[in-house]
Amino acid sequence: MDLRRKGNQTVVFANPPVILASYAVVGPKEGQGPLGKTFSNVWKDQLNGEKSWELAESKMLQEALQGSIDQSGLAKEQIDFLLAGDLLNQIVSSNLAARQIALPFIGVYGACSTMALSLALGSMLIDGGFAQNVLIGVSSHHDTAERQFRLPTEQGSQRAMSAQWTVTGAGSVLLGKQGAGPRITAATLGRVIDYGETDANNMGAAMAPAVADTILNHFQDLQRKAQDYDLIASGDLGTVGLALAAEVLKQSGLEMGTGFTDCGVRIFDASQDVHAGASGCACSAVVFAGELMQKLKAGELKRVMLVGSGALHSPTSAMQGESIPGIGHAVVIEA
Amino acid sequence: MDLRRKGNQTVVFANPPVILASYAVVGPKEGQGPLGKTFSNVWKDQLNGEKSWELAESKMLQEALQGSIDQSGLAKEQIDFLLAGDLLNQIVSSNLAARQIALPFIGVYGACSTMALSLALGSMLIDGGFAQNVLIGVSSHHDTAERQFRLPTEQGSQRAMSAQWTVTGAGSVLLGKQGAGPRITAATLGRVIDYGETDANNMGAAMAPAVADTILNHFQDLQRKAQDYDLIASGDLGTVGLALAAEVLKQSGLEMGTGFTDCGVRIFDASQDVHAGASGCACSAVVFAGELMQKLKAGELKRVMLVGSGALHSPTSAMQGESIPGIGHAVVIEA
Repeated sequence: MDLRRKGNQTVVFANPPVILASYAVVGPKEGQGPLGKTFSNVWKDQLNGEKSWELAESKMLQEALQGSIDQSGLAKEQIDFLLAGDLLNQIVSSNLAARQIALPFIGVYGACSTMALSLALGSMLIDGGFAQNVLIGVSSHHDTAERQFRLPTEQGSQRAMSAQWTVTGAGSVLLGKQGAGPRITAATLGRVIDYGETDANNMGAAMAPAVADTILNHFQDLQRKAQDYDLIASGDLGTVGLALAAEVLKQSGLEMGTGFTDCGVRIFDASQDVHAGASGCACSAVVFAGELMQKLKAGELKRVMLVGSGALHSPTSAMQGESIPGIGHAVVIEA
Repeated sequence: MDLRRKGNQTVVFANPPVILASYAVVGPKEGQGPLGKTFSNVWKDQLNGEKSWELAESKMLQEALQGSIDQSGLAKEQIDFLLAGDLLNQIVSSNLAARQIALPFIGVYGACSTMALSLALGSMLIDGGFAQNVLIGVSSHHDTAERQFRLPTEQGSQRAMSAQWTVTGAGSVLLGKQGAGPRITAATLGRVIDYGETDANNMGAAMAPAVADTILNHFQDLQRKAQDYDLIASGDLGTVGLALAAEVLKQSGLEMGTGFTDCGVRIFDASQDVHAGASGCACSAVVFAGELMQKLKAGELKRVMLVGSGALHSPTSAMQGESIPGIGHAVVIEA
């Protein structure tokens, strides 16, 4: 077994890539939430002058990508690859942003786990010797997601209590081979797990077993336990999914303790009427690029695991009666 | 600059990964074409007993993935990652196949360039020391693509002469660190290029400039020319796009010669009424996993460049008036 590979699903970086910069931009509702002050920018409305929500989402992603480039002080030509993904059909927000940024482009799809998946992949490209710097960005938008995955927003349908609110936002990270900043030290790529959940208004339940599976495998592969981390944050399980994941892990003999949280639980508060919490590619991306990066840089957090959670269904597969496959991808970040 | 990186967009593998196995499965129309005998299996109809075209597509992908595993003689547990992608919304064919295969899963989206993109990524994961073996698979299906991207097939609309026929099929490749077989020696990841084509019935024209850009950058990065290759095959430019790409390259001073071909031109013949040729993720995948692999293994071809071509639009972006962003990803395979 190669030195960079541990156990069944985990890779450990020989020269852990550095997070040189990060940028989070969100919509007004996210800006009003408890993490409002941790974001780089808050848009005043959902369109910001664009003629469609879809174009607005892509512009948010472009802003996040450019924000990280500017913050790093690197010239665009020093960046080897752009990794990006989103929830829209054919990841078109990312494609349009990649057209603008004009870097060698690797399109990724992991649903709402895309930030963690891209951090893992980007780290492998750098540690493997194929890149000096890799730019990563993901986005989601409440209104583009609603009309693509659910119902026309104009219809004003009542939402289920287990439903989550797709975050309007984009998060980006610029990874480098050299420099100062928190480092990505390991990653555990997830398997697709499906316990048969068919309710597309209960994504948390669909993704919880996959997140639990990845955490279990991560601990096994590296001989670690929950207490080895200051914080373990799943991507967007929401309140329903987070409780279920903790329960699944408990039944496997793992007490996760108070350091187990979820980005989708942190981003809105109870007064914001989002029901089971937040979701979307941007959910874990903006919490990571904002709050978690600030606490890592300030030394408040020393070792964090981000476990991106993804529901890998499509509206077509759901309508055809398929259950919702889930996935969890974990990356370890150390100050 | 790192040893594994050459010029602006190219990576060169220190220990070129080996293609241990490959498998191509197609639908009946593809089986009747000139490459019919090069495929591992030809389905008798578009459904093969499944209740929807979408499930049939995913089953094709599962067959291709399992076919490569079986051919390699490896146990599934010896494979570190599955890389897969397709054209369906949320790459759901791949997600359902990944659920079945249950390996750590990296979802990729490069539209019809996904096979080349995955070969490049998989090779980096192996050469970078993160994997011993990587399984790759992509799929497309004429009927799932028609109803998602175009019009209900039942409507029987007349097709434009520049339109291409989406291949029903799936191709897979099993890459290994060690073993016997053709090797992937280099890859050039493409940038998104958009010359403003808005006609979704003329994808070849939309993708041709991106393919030309990647070929030009590849030659520049490695100081090579067309004559250094026995064959340069674009993914699915079709007759219209292939001629345009050759013209763009000619205007840049490059004569591509007779070794420049396109998988989308090879797969059907004139009698099959497909107009400008074939397209789809499976197009380059089944030509590569079938005909090209056979010729590489037989020594008829010594050095081949596959340039996957992708049209990175979505039906929504097209309806909103956006032009079609194109991309080309190149991999070099040597016997």
